[in-house]
Amino acid sequence: MALLNHHYSKLSSLPVFEAVSQKIAQFQKKDPSRRVVNLGSGSPSHPIPSPALAALYESALELSRPETVQAYGPAQGYLFLREAISLHAYKGLVTPEEIFISHGAQSDLSQIQEIFSSDNKIAVPDLFHPSALECHVMAGRTRLPLKNGGYGGVVYLPCSPENDFCPDLPNRPTDLIYLCSPHNPTGTALSRSQLETWVAHARKNRAVLIFDGTYEPFIRSSDIPHSIYEIEGAREVAIEIRSFSKSANFSSLRCSYTVIPRTLVAVETHQSLPLHSLWLRRQQTKSNGTSYLAQRAAAALYTPEAQRAIREALDRYHAQTQQLRSTLQKKGWTVHGGYHAPFLWVRTPSKTDSWEFFDRLLETAGIAVVPGIGFGAQGAHYVRFSGFASPEEFAEGIARLEAL
Amino acid sequence: MALLNHHYSKLSSLPVFEAVSQKIAQFQKKDPSRRVVNLGSGSPSHPIPSPALAALYESALELSRPETVQAYGPAQGYLFLREAISLHAYKGLVTPEEIFISHGAQSDLSQIQEIFSSDNKIAVPDLFHPSALECHVMAGRTRLPLKNGGYGGVVYLPCSPENDFCPDLPNRPTDLIYLCSPHNPTGTALSRSQLETWVAHARKNRAVLIFDGTYEPFIRSSDIPHSIYEIEGAREVAIEIRSFSKSANFSSLRCSYTVIPRTLVAVETHQSLPLHSLWLRRQQTKSNGTSYLAQRAAAALYTPEAQRAIREALDRYHAQTQQLRSTLQKKGWTVHGGYHAPFLWVRTPSKTDSWEFFDRLLETAGIAVVPGIGFGAQGAHYVRFSGFASPEEFAEGIARLEAL
Repeated sequence: MALLNHHYSKLSSLPVFEAVSQKIAQFQKKDPSRRVVNLGSGSPSHPIPSPALAALYESALELSRPETVQAYGPAQGYLFLREAISLHAYKGLVTPEEIFISHGAQSDLSQIQEIFSSDNKIAVPDLFHPSALECHVMAGRTRLPLKNGGYGGVVYLPCSPENDFCPDLPNRPTDLIYLCSPHNPTGTALSRSQLETWVAHARKNRAVLIFDGTYEPFIRSSDIPHSIYEIEGAREVAIEIRSFSKSANFSSLRCSYTVIPRTLVAVETHQSLPLHSLWLRRQQTKSNGTSYLAQRAAAALYTPEAQRAIREALDRYHAQTQQLRSTLQKKGWTVHGGYHAPFLWVRTPSKTDSWEFFDRLLETAGIAVVPGIGFGAQGAHYVRFSGFASPEEFAEGIARLEAL
Repeated sequence: MALLNHHYSKLSSLPVFEAVSQKIAQFQKKDPSRRVVNLGSGSPSHPIPSPALAALYESALELSRPETVQAYGPAQGYLFLREAISLHAYKGLVTPEEIFISHGAQSDLSQIQEIFSSDNKIAVPDLFHPSALECHVMAGRTRLPLKNGGYGGVVYLPCSPENDFCPDLPNRPTDLIYLCSPHNPTGTALSRSQLETWVAHARKNRAVLIFDGTYEPFIRSSDIPHSIYEIEGAREVAIEIRSFSKSANFSSLRCSYTVIPRTLVAVETHQSLPLHSLWLRRQQTKSNGTSYLAQRAAAALYTPEAQRAIREALDRYHAQTQQLRSTLQKKGWTVHGGYHAPFLWVRTPSKTDSWEFFDRLLETAGIAVVPGIGFGAQGAHYVRFSGFASPEEFAEGIARLEAL
């Protein structure tokens, strides 16, 4: 008799982004004439840069000609893209051999746990992308759900105004520690000295840091490291995950990458082993590689023309985020973040519950945001706004907010 | 202190396809002048059909224009493709809601186990794609490696000439049963009555069948069901996995699908739950959907023009497979399969070990095949040939075989 994975029944609710999509769809169904403006989405609105389009055309054409047909690609990704990333995105800080191309940062963030023992203790910022924790719930590494929406057995690292949303070191031993900078959902970022503290902590405790660098392209100050590997000693303790989804709007194309330095080892029953070998073995068994077209398009992003287009898009999101901040502040709302990421972390007025505030904004203004509780208990009285909307949608959103 | 998943150390060797690629690369490095002809590959050689190319162009262009940019796609896949599959590939036998689009059959085959309890007993044909079993090794569902390359705790269903490579029912209770028809690697297929026996067995034992239908497009006789759901009662016991990789050569584009009928339930600690809900929840957490371009291209495969191109390619592979059979038989070798799949399962002369025979063919003729042991202990004295080579490569391979 087939038995289901009973850990799934511990999952408290839908992932917040699914729940938001469903609420929007219901609202539009009820009132199709009133278009919802999404001012909370993490989906960019700019077109892919022209060099990426050219690469898509060329590579698609190759697949349609007998002499240039491509076979199954390498499980780790094509060398041409790994070389480009090593050179341009890391200036040689990591080698092509240490880079794994994949079809999504969210997938890697939730699947990297497979190579770790089920006995590891997890530390996760309380305010984090829900996938990072839900995958551990599914894998049975957590205990029963808590009343506040969290899970027993997890060490939560609160992100609150008291610590500027930068998590403090755990007060208990932990083995896998998730970090995200610039931070989704609060739009804050970890400084060099903060990252140094985390790397030192991980080295001392032989913990592994899983560093979500999805929003790296949005960094606007030299105080904020672009990569965890800029910190001395990080190559022995950190995995870094990045994406092309935000900078080049590859959200529907699917291409991302994960770095596992050769120097990163962890303990197996009788020996220390490089994590790199385990993840490679995992990819060889469970993946047939990432789309050749997406990888060709990603490699084209390192041309000067594409870099200019990306810079323009990032500048627009930054400007929109600043305008959104001042509009929200004019309403008397408390707003955090938004300098190194296109996210504003906004306190709900009079401590309203985050879903209640979401519903109210949707009903009264037709504006969608993301309820903070979806990122952790610390988000119970916050919502996430973002500057990702198209210029037209954004202008409409601002007008609706001002009229509110 | 971070601990690794110690189950990885039970994995006996590299996945066979990786090991073959490495051997070929070593050979070419040693002697760059002697081109290896691959007569064992599962990678098609024909171009993608023109309507798929047109769809790739159109959808890529959409992403490059602000007004038609796509956001993150649905975790289950776009409805347009699920509707097309339901209508054309299943004639309504399954609904669009029961179809999950993904980026690879191998991924789904190895990841579907996540929604099942670790207590389930696994039955797998001894001769199967190695991923199906390796994922269970990684998840800790197997015991120590056996001397023959298998794993303790697994119920192996031998595929041998005695049963025409069609596995017999297990003689012990099992919960998850893998089947593949047409069968990789032997190129045989399960008849309607054989599938009826399996469905009845699964119903009686409340087991779940995981049916790998990757080679469905190659079926050439009405005796062989195209889908497990043609069998009455299968909707309560079977998951089916299919791919666009072989028929349309989407191997580098990455698009496949998995069907989980709404009527398929399994037992959780206190209740029966639909597997559909669990897999949907899994995809919502761990996936951000499959490439929009690949899904647009896949939907274009149901046009008459694309269907004609696919038919032509399949006919060529069939003809090549028949020619290969007679060439091999003329050498006095024993050959099985090759009617409903482009694979020939060839006994090594004088019971040579399959890797030894692989090495000999590579060294003496520059021909690569796949050693049978990579698919299970029953393959120890077999190799897999295939009819997938390009016309030029195939002709060269035949010439080399004849000269051998």
